[in-house]
Amino acid sequence: MYRNYKLNELRMENIGEEVTLSGWISKVRDLGHFVFIDLRDRYGITQILLNEEVSGSELFEEARKYKNEWVLKVTGVVAERSSKNKNIPTGDIEIEAKKIEVLSRAKQLPFEISETGNLSENMRLTYRYLDIRRPKMLNNIIKRNDMLFSIRKFMNKNGFLDVDTPILAKATPEGARDFIVPSRTNKGDFYALPQSPQLFKQILMVSGIDKYYQLAKCFRDEDLRADRQPEFTQLDVEMSFVEQEDVISMAEELTKTVFKDVTGIEITEKFLRMSYDDAMNFYGSDKPDLRFDMKLIDLSEETADCGFGVFENALKDGGNVKAIVAPNAEKFSRKYIKDLEDYVKTYFKAKGLAYIKVNENGEINSPIAKFFSEEKLTQIIEKLGIKNNEVALILADKYKVVHDGLGALRLKLGEELELIDKNAFKFLWVVDFPMFEWSEEENRYKAQHHPFTSIKEEDRKYLDTNELAKIKTDSYDIVLNGYEIGGGSIRIHDEDLQAKVFEKLGFSQEELEDKFGFFLEVLKYGVPPHGGLAYGIDRWLMAMLKEDSIKEVIPFPKTNKGQDLMIGAPAGIEEQVLEDDLRLKLLEVEKED
Amino acid sequence: MYRNYKLNELRMENIGEEVTLSGWISKVRDLGHFVFIDLRDRYGITQILLNEEVSGSELFEEARKYKNEWVLKVTGVVAERSSKNKNIPTGDIEIEAKKIEVLSRAKQLPFEISETGNLSENMRLTYRYLDIRRPKMLNNIIKRNDMLFSIRKFMNKNGFLDVDTPILAKATPEGARDFIVPSRTNKGDFYALPQSPQLFKQILMVSGIDKYYQLAKCFRDEDLRADRQPEFTQLDVEMSFVEQEDVISMAEELTKTVFKDVTGIEITEKFLRMSYDDAMNFYGSDKPDLRFDMKLIDLSEETADCGFGVFENALKDGGNVKAIVAPNAEKFSRKYIKDLEDYVKTYFKAKGLAYIKVNENGEINSPIAKFFSEEKLTQIIEKLGIKNNEVALILADKYKVVHDGLGALRLKLGEELELIDKNAFKFLWVVDFPMFEWSEEENRYKAQHHPFTSIKEEDRKYLDTNELAKIKTDSYDIVLNGYEIGGGSIRIHDEDLQAKVFEKLGFSQEELEDKFGFFLEVLKYGVPPHGGLAYGIDRWLMAMLKEDSIKEVIPFPKTNKGQDLMIGAPAGIEEQVLEDDLRLKLLEVEKED
Repeated sequence: MYRNYKLNELRMENIGEEVTLSGWISKVRDLGHFVFIDLRDRYGITQILLNEEVSGSELFEEARKYKNEWVLKVTGVVAERSSKNKNIPTGDIEIEAKKIEVLSRAKQLPFEISETGNLSENMRLTYRYLDIRRPKMLNNIIKRNDMLFSIRKFMNKNGFLDVDTPILAKATPEGARDFIVPSRTNKGDFYALPQSPQLFKQILMVSGIDKYYQLAKCFRDEDLRADRQPEFTQLDVEMSFVEQEDVISMAEELTKTVFKDVTGIEITEKFLRMSYDDAMNFYGSDKPDLRFDMKLIDLSEETADCGFGVFENALKDGGNVKAIVAPNAEKFSRKYIKDLEDYVKTYFKAKGLAYIKVNENGEINSPIAKFFSEEKLTQIIEKLGIKNNEVALILADKYKVVHDGLGALRLKLGEELELIDKNAFKFLWVVDFPMFEWSEEENRYKAQHHPFTSIKEEDRKYLDTNELAKIKTDSYDIVLNGYEIGGGSIRIHDEDLQAKVFEKLGFSQEELEDKFGFFLEVLKYGVPPHGGLAYGIDRWLMAMLKEDSIKEVIPFPKTNKGQDLMIGAPAGIEEQVLEDDLRLKLLEVEKED
Repeated sequence: MYRNYKLNELRMENIGEEVTLSGWISKVRDLGHFVFIDLRDRYGITQILLNEEVSGSELFEEARKYKNEWVLKVTGVVAERSSKNKNIPTGDIEIEAKKIEVLSRAKQLPFEISETGNLSENMRLTYRYLDIRRPKMLNNIIKRNDMLFSIRKFMNKNGFLDVDTPILAKATPEGARDFIVPSRTNKGDFYALPQSPQLFKQILMVSGIDKYYQLAKCFRDEDLRADRQPEFTQLDVEMSFVEQEDVISMAEELTKTVFKDVTGIEITEKFLRMSYDDAMNFYGSDKPDLRFDMKLIDLSEETADCGFGVFENALKDGGNVKAIVAPNAEKFSRKYIKDLEDYVKTYFKAKGLAYIKVNENGEINSPIAKFFSEEKLTQIIEKLGIKNNEVALILADKYKVVHDGLGALRLKLGEELELIDKNAFKFLWVVDFPMFEWSEEENRYKAQHHPFTSIKEEDRKYLDTNELAKIKTDSYDIVLNGYEIGGGSIRIHDEDLQAKVFEKLGFSQEELEDKFGFFLEVLKYGVPPHGGLAYGIDRWLMAMLKEDSIKEVIPFPKTNKGQDLMIGAPAGIEEQVLEDDLRLKLLEVEKED
């Protein structure tokens, strides 16, 4: 028997009891006549006391040689502490050790478990098993468990069936790239790891499952960004005989329940709703962070004939002139404004960034002011609502440049001027996404969500026109503090409509047959109206815990280069296995290292 | 709104209510003046009535054209049925339809949903979405959901943390073959899909997680048998500071809880226990089916000097002479006995099968009787305990041939003579497996479970001897009706012992470094004693539902050739993707069909 109590359990009422405890040494303090050990497990810390009288001199001398992170089994008697520690639940007592067995030794760790400073990511991921001993990571793993179980309880209570769909699946077109898996049994053929169980969940609705959920592993083989992983976890949900409101209301209740179970905070008010168009127009983002205001202000009317060519031409070309207004004008030095301009030039291809700064005393400072009449300038300033010690940043360009650029500037200023209420949690539904999005690179329309999204009844008339961009869908994203934590749609359940959408997306008949042939067949056998959504578990949890990276909430994440530094994956494999078993030959590869 | 009731909900007390229902047409009966429709969803069936009076002649005429599996939305009034159906919960009422919307049509199905006969597996898997509409498959999917949730509730209640480990992992040696996944980001390198999260769960114990579980997808790229799938689901469990009894007692409680939730049957008595040696000696199997008796009977003593060379030589060569005794001797024609002999010759390399048959009237019929003295024969018959109308089947050969052969014959006869109580559920713990197993092919010892299994304290002395085969482990398998549904062990937590075991398994230093280097490093940082087990979810559920194949309990299984007939995976991919993205070239492949 290794323990009869965990290390958060003993209290004053246990005094006098002989107990056996096991755990890691968190700290050893050798005070000459006494040795104190903080023994730690997942649950807490209990203080162990050794002295010659109680422990005998042999054990006492041994204990002086103990090192951090050794694993001990301690038998002793619970006693009241002379100096109590109010910070831990066991702080009133200590164990007078009579017998200690060293279960495992530890060599010098690459970092201290108690280290709270910034360790390099490489170090943390190489020694993830030690990183998880640190309270913050341990807590994140516990919170992840709580979240997953909270979700399952909710789904189960609401009649959703947990159905697991294959990991060894088939490649899908559109979107990011698949991981492929060569088959030994069927040499020359490949499985693909799913980017999402989208088709399977729709198939389950055709099967009559009615309400489905799954916490599914999904995969994308693409260049990784700070908040992307090659494998990630998705809460996948689908319902039959529902309309958009049914899905949203179920999902909102789920989101609140999980939020309560993870953060302890109860949300009673309904989540805000915003159309995609409003989100773009007012926040330059389809996932606005509503923890601060700073809306985009439209200056088209005021600048249409303002006399300033740059603005006028942008409007004439069908673009926009828009601005955001920031406080703390005194921070906007020439240098700072130049940096902001470089930022929108570099990342959003803006041609420049105009500004109007109003000093503490009301004095206007703006290189573009000279282009406007007194009257125009007054109109612009009135529209901006700019006050003393504020600054307006203005972009005049194509829709995308203006909105993406100002949207990003807004977030950047929110951070840098500390406008964001870091204690706030702002949920938002963004609804009514467009069906089609013009791709400049591919010179064709692409599906903004995915090609199975149902088109709004009233917009179907545009399908056979040139106004595909006008078509809106029954779709919805859920946003928390500027992160898209989930999204979904009502799906097309009509075979003909689905075929038409595929056609508009420019799939050739052959491509269609190859990629979706089986699914178009599925749609011929009695399909219920259905819809659902999917949450990105990792990002959702990250947003609830206010972490900066999903790596903080994934037990064993990959680096941004897709590597598992702990186990050393991916790795080379023997050519013979490749050639004999899989009939594959590795071509020459330039190694970066 | 598509429905305000599900199709199992309406009762007499709803009479007069106007309701809206949606579902599939299970059956249409056109009785001239009436049309009856059985409308079906996941929950049940409700009868819809149409007649000219209530429904109007237009709708009535339309309804006569409806076909099975169309999807309808029906609005009408609940009425009492004239002829009630006591077999369904809604059998007292019907809906007088006022309005019907056809939500989706269905073309002629490849098979009837009501078909209960034997459909070909290919047909069922190609149209799995229709197969799932059939009550049995739907029920199996619901039971799978119930099982998974039951497990999670139990694990959560008992303080286990759900921690997900990577699917994109690293190849492990020993055991079956890995699926490999080429990396685009790290060209020339490969991930492997995990055969189990074994190392990760041990690492989690080193991390201090204390109690871990996961319902994990696992993968094996090997030739498939009837009860194997390339991807399968495992309940993976690991605990720290535990001994064998702790794991067994937790697992037994879990098994009973899940059994109750899935089958409704409560088990109060403790599960039987049997050592691996006893299981092999008495049942010729490490997973005995205890729903019938028919133990192996050892005839060594009686046949040591019996005068029959075949028996004597088998014993002299260190082998065994053993028998099983079956009832219904009248069924054992020469032809039947010959078939049984061919069976053990073909599958177990037996040289022959001896028998002693005792007829109804006590007459002995045995080609080998003539080799024995009267006294010997009496001794043998006494040891066999053979009675009138029984037959003894005897194998004399090496241990493996005798035990595997008789073990298989026992099961075969159990089925063919209908000795198995098909209503019974017999649970069993098999414990104390050997650590090492001699591999004739590889001419070396292999780990019977896996190389991380802890060796019994008292057997460690054999590690440096030639008697490795004597070494038993702290290990346990859980068996239900002859299926191994789970198994596990206490693990080695001592770095030196682990290194020694690897050495005995014949790993070279280089191999070891390459494959387990990181894990041996993990063992240097303070390792708690730990152990756990894993259940094969699919087989466990199959055994509880008394299905014959795991394909019956997996929503979307692969065929025995590893194919998903519904989505058409695996499939070829473009050479260009292979070469450019992955730097792989497909070598020539001989296609079968």
